[in-house]
Amino acid sequence: MCELLGMSANVPTDIVFSFTGLMQRGGLTGPHRDGWGIAFYEGKGVRVFQDPRPSYQSEVAELVRRYPIKSETVIGHIRHANVGDVCLANTHPFVRELWGQNWCFAHNGQLANFSPAPGFYQPVGTTDSEAAFCDLLNHIRERFPKHAPGPEIVPTLVACCQRYRSRGVFNCMLSNGEWLFTFCTTKLAEITRRAPFGPAHLKDLEVQVDFQSETTPNDVVTVLATEPLTTNETWTMHPSGTWTLWVGGECIVRAIAEPLSDKEID
Amino acid sequence: MCELLGMSANVPTDIVFSFTGLMQRGGLTGPHRDGWGIAFYEGKGVRVFQDPRPSYQSEVAELVRRYPIKSETVIGHIRHANVGDVCLANTHPFVRELWGQNWCFAHNGQLANFSPAPGFYQPVGTTDSEAAFCDLLNHIRERFPKHAPGPEIVPTLVACCQRYRSRGVFNCMLSNGEWLFTFCTTKLAEITRRAPFGPAHLKDLEVQVDFQSETTPNDVVTVLATEPLTTNETWTMHPSGTWTLWVGGECIVRAIAEPLSDKEID
Repeated sequence: MCELLGMSANVPTDIVFSFTGLMQRGGLTGPHRDGWGIAFYEGKGVRVFQDPRPSYQSEVAELVRRYPIKSETVIGHIRHANVGDVCLANTHPFVRELWGQNWCFAHNGQLANFSPAPGFYQPVGTTDSEAAFCDLLNHIRERFPKHAPGPEIVPTLVACCQRYRSRGVFNCMLSNGEWLFTFCTTKLAEITRRAPFGPAHLKDLEVQVDFQSETTPNDVVTVLATEPLTTNETWTMHPSGTWTLWVGGECIVRAIAEPLSDKEID
Repeated sequence: MCELLGMSANVPTDIVFSFTGLMQRGGLTGPHRDGWGIAFYEGKGVRVFQDPRPSYQSEVAELVRRYPIKSETVIGHIRHANVGDVCLANTHPFVRELWGQNWCFAHNGQLANFSPAPGFYQPVGTTDSEAAFCDLLNHIRERFPKHAPGPEIVPTLVACCQRYRSRGVFNCMLSNGEWLFTFCTTKLAEITRRAPFGPAHLKDLEVQVDFQSETTPNDVVTVLATEPLTTNETWTMHPSGTWTLWVGGECIVRAIAEPLSDKEID
């Protein structure tokens, strides 16, 4: 299994605190030794740092920690490989262009016997995760050849995720820079921080931050992670089947999807 | 104008020496203050570092200098903006997936009145360079829906470059990780280093390297750059219209294309 990290905020925000916690799980407090990656949206551009090495000893991770990149949308991932070798091409998040936008995707889970129909987007690596991402984009592109707003495409996203879910564990994060979409079948936790901001203590390392000193009263910052990253805050756990759509730190729509029946899967 | 840097080698080779020279031109010994980027192929994966800040004072550039990434194919670029704002989305090299491969592209020059027909690949940013890259990929994809070897697609690449050339300056580098293609209309220089290796002195900084101590007798490493990067070696300058295709440090095919006549452009 892997671990996911996502952020949606209404102002460019640095995610160093959460990233620092997550990176410890990449071989130190957690078993996810098989690489890590993080994507930061910066306007329409996206900055991706990846490394097939364990995150807790990665020089690239150290740069990301030292160099606070501010972004409104972030997707991060640390990998515990099950399908596909440990190599750069198999390292999340994956990126493709659709509608002149950078789409980013990361997945935690494993899909059995998954070989989607070939389409325009093709995987570069050999993971089930990238195959699912390409399949999802092929469906979106077919249904929406031109740009459509997040809430309009959510039913297609959910329908795809429901199909993947029928083949195994499928927790994922997806963004095109306008919104952040999540789907949870086993583990995902969220926290939204807003005024009055207080201190937070990391679970995986002796680090604490006082968000009060780094924020303005109007800031809204939501962090999503496979497991809660702090010990002194209350995280909301997503029940299985939960999907959410975030814009500027706020959840604009969410629901819980029931698993498909065998008939619906066929 | 911008500056380009490319490398093709038969063994994973670090490009720190050449990169160090190039980065000085990003605001210090050259005027290219408007960002920089570099892409390293690692198997089928590609590692891209980019920054819209001047390279000579970029922390990300510092990381790349300190952290020798070994690759067989590299494309780098420092930008002096003429079309498009200074922002991450407008920073070269650009990457798209085609045939399940990562294609990377960087351009030096400027195209006048360039608005190619829309196609599958769409630019994320607003540069003429990314528009040309998307147009080129749209042509390749249309002509070769499935993987074809480099020498087979070269005529299509050259035909596209010839059309762009009719609109201005078009020096470019393109790779899919299997080969490196270059096209030159004004400035491009190359050097192939092989045994016996000797010392090299950078032009832009007091740095010297002895390649002898870092190589084996079978290594072949070609570096291409807008202008020669060293003072004690003989670089070959590309005449206008020269295109080359490199695999493993060796040029496997090259020619000089005459400019199109007005009739051919229409």
